[in-house]
Amino acid sequence: MRDVCVIGLGLLGGSLLRAAAATDRTVWGAVPGEEAAAARAAGFDATTDTARALRRAAERDALVVVAVPLPALDDVLTLVARHAPECLLTDVTSVKEPVLASVRELAGRARYTGGHPMAGTTDSGWAAGDSALFDGATWALCVEDDTDLTAWREAAVLALDIGARVCPLPAAEHDDTVARISHLPHLFAEVLASVAAQNGPLSASLAAGSFRDGTRVAATRPELVRAMTEGNRAALLPVLDEALGALGAARGSLASTGGLAATINAGHAGVTSLRQHTALDHTALHIDLDATDARTALAALGNQGGRVTAVEDTTATAEVPRDHSERC
Amino acid sequence: MRDVCVIGLGLLGGSLLRAAAATDRTVWGAVPGEEAAAARAAGFDATTDTARALRRAAERDALVVVAVPLPALDDVLTLVARHAPECLLTDVTSVKEPVLASVRELAGRARYTGGHPMAGTTDSGWAAGDSALFDGATWALCVEDDTDLTAWREAAVLALDIGARVCPLPAAEHDDTVARISHLPHLFAEVLASVAAQNGPLSASLAAGSFRDGTRVAATRPELVRAMTEGNRAALLPVLDEALGALGAARGSLASTGGLAATINAGHAGVTSLRQHTALDHTALHIDLDATDARTALAALGNQGGRVTAVEDTTATAEVPRDHSERC
Repeated sequence: MRDVCVIGLGLLGGSLLRAAAATDRTVWGAVPGEEAAAARAAGFDATTDTARALRRAAERDALVVVAVPLPALDDVLTLVARHAPECLLTDVTSVKEPVLASVRELAGRARYTGGHPMAGTTDSGWAAGDSALFDGATWALCVEDDTDLTAWREAAVLALDIGARVCPLPAAEHDDTVARISHLPHLFAEVLASVAAQNGPLSASLAAGSFRDGTRVAATRPELVRAMTEGNRAALLPVLDEALGALGAARGSLASTGGLAATINAGHAGVTSLRQHTALDHTALHIDLDATDARTALAALGNQGGRVTAVEDTTATAEVPRDHSERC
Repeated sequence: MRDVCVIGLGLLGGSLLRAAAATDRTVWGAVPGEEAAAARAAGFDATTDTARALRRAAERDALVVVAVPLPALDDVLTLVARHAPECLLTDVTSVKEPVLASVRELAGRARYTGGHPMAGTTDSGWAAGDSALFDGATWALCVEDDTDLTAWREAAVLALDIGARVCPLPAAEHDDTVARISHLPHLFAEVLASVAAQNGPLSASLAAGSFRDGTRVAATRPELVRAMTEGNRAALLPVLDEALGALGAARGSLASTGGLAATINAGHAGVTSLRQHTALDHTALHIDLDATDARTALAALGNQGGRVTAVEDTTATAEVPRDHSERC
């Protein structure tokens, strides 16, 4: 198994260090701060010296996983270019096009595939980490026309070994999709919380399930929400405009005819169709990662809601919803 | 204990019939449909003849609880005016000003207090009912300048006996608050589901906790969501405008400076302050329901986030957050 070097030991990096170590890989981590000492105290191989960790990765041709917040990414990529310029590289950042652009600019020789595990809690930091965090999670793993398939394969094998399922997709589609299913929900939760707080004690008295669910993620640390939403600005803006358009239409309809049927029926149909996707039977599929059209085949798989469930040698085993076109 | 007559045996009415029966009250229900047979099969006293149930309520001076959807309310109130014109009357509808207006218009001699238990699930109908539905729930119970305090007292005693806590407040404040903590969250959930469904299979693959939480209530039957949101049109419109203003400001800031700090910090502060309200220590308070200022005292209690926890004879025992003004 390929060695793994994790840069950044917060919730995601710390969980990954723990989970990867449990697979019997040789694993080490680096973080410039107290979390290195906490990781060492817990029995892990961790240092505050990122450069040294990267040099070791270069020597052993390890997979380097960058798990720092977006604002800290460029500094780490500069160190990668200096100390492990041709390493196998992936990351766990919540946006993918901006990271891809940074990698191309700052560490262009690295063999890179962008990653994003769809897992997290409202907690953060090393102490909040959990080796089971990725168990059953979907791990987005980017394929562009020029993605290095060795890096893709190594990142996929790691994600699968720690319990995730891998969804291959281009960075642009990733960013549009997470704007819809994560960043917009975060902004909506913030606005709901603000609007309710205008009427403090009574809102607190009457708040029930719909409010608690709708605002839960507003308790996430503001810095984290800013990093993910502001970092996905280009993809989030048009999605936010779609949402504003839909809410504006609801507002107009409520004011004029008093009816909200269009808004409510569309929402109900939307959540129903998304749940149907999840409940569809799957059929198995094999993709040869050495084939010339491997990247196209992987992206097509993701686009149909499919996911890679195993990788052995150069063959990816996948499952894809059956009768997809008929039912959706 | 006062007899109880429940009109409408869906989720709320059916749960109330079960819960009230468990208090050893004499309880009967009416619903013009199959649910009456289902309730009888489960051992309850239920009829399809609403008029007969109301005449019995008039004879026994029972508390009549109207638990029908808003669009069916006026027909029931017309029957109340004919068959039990001076009854003790309450309801469990999710809006209170429109119901108050209908009661004044159609059953003006009834001794009425508006009620709204903050409990529910995304299921509906008699079969979804549960005698424990109200356990620990907050039950909004309206006090206007002219509210009949016998009706208020009887409705409060019933709500308390089945495990709820009672929040007294004027109908207008109720409708504004539920627009903020329930109806806006429902509309936001519908819009989130629609926007995500634009990218169906990929959204389904990548959806994680923030999306599931943010869209859960979009699975509620569209008719129920329409009834509650459209029924609260007057209070919902200005709240929807507040939300559109906040989202528009976020959009403008993201497009111009790229920053979302104001939106995210306000949301985080809002959810934090609402959770602090809930966690405050409480101090006990007694309100004499026979006093001339009883209605004012009850409304003031609700406005401070307080709640009635017991009613004995004409004394309401309440708890109110301590040091309220200091901490909020």
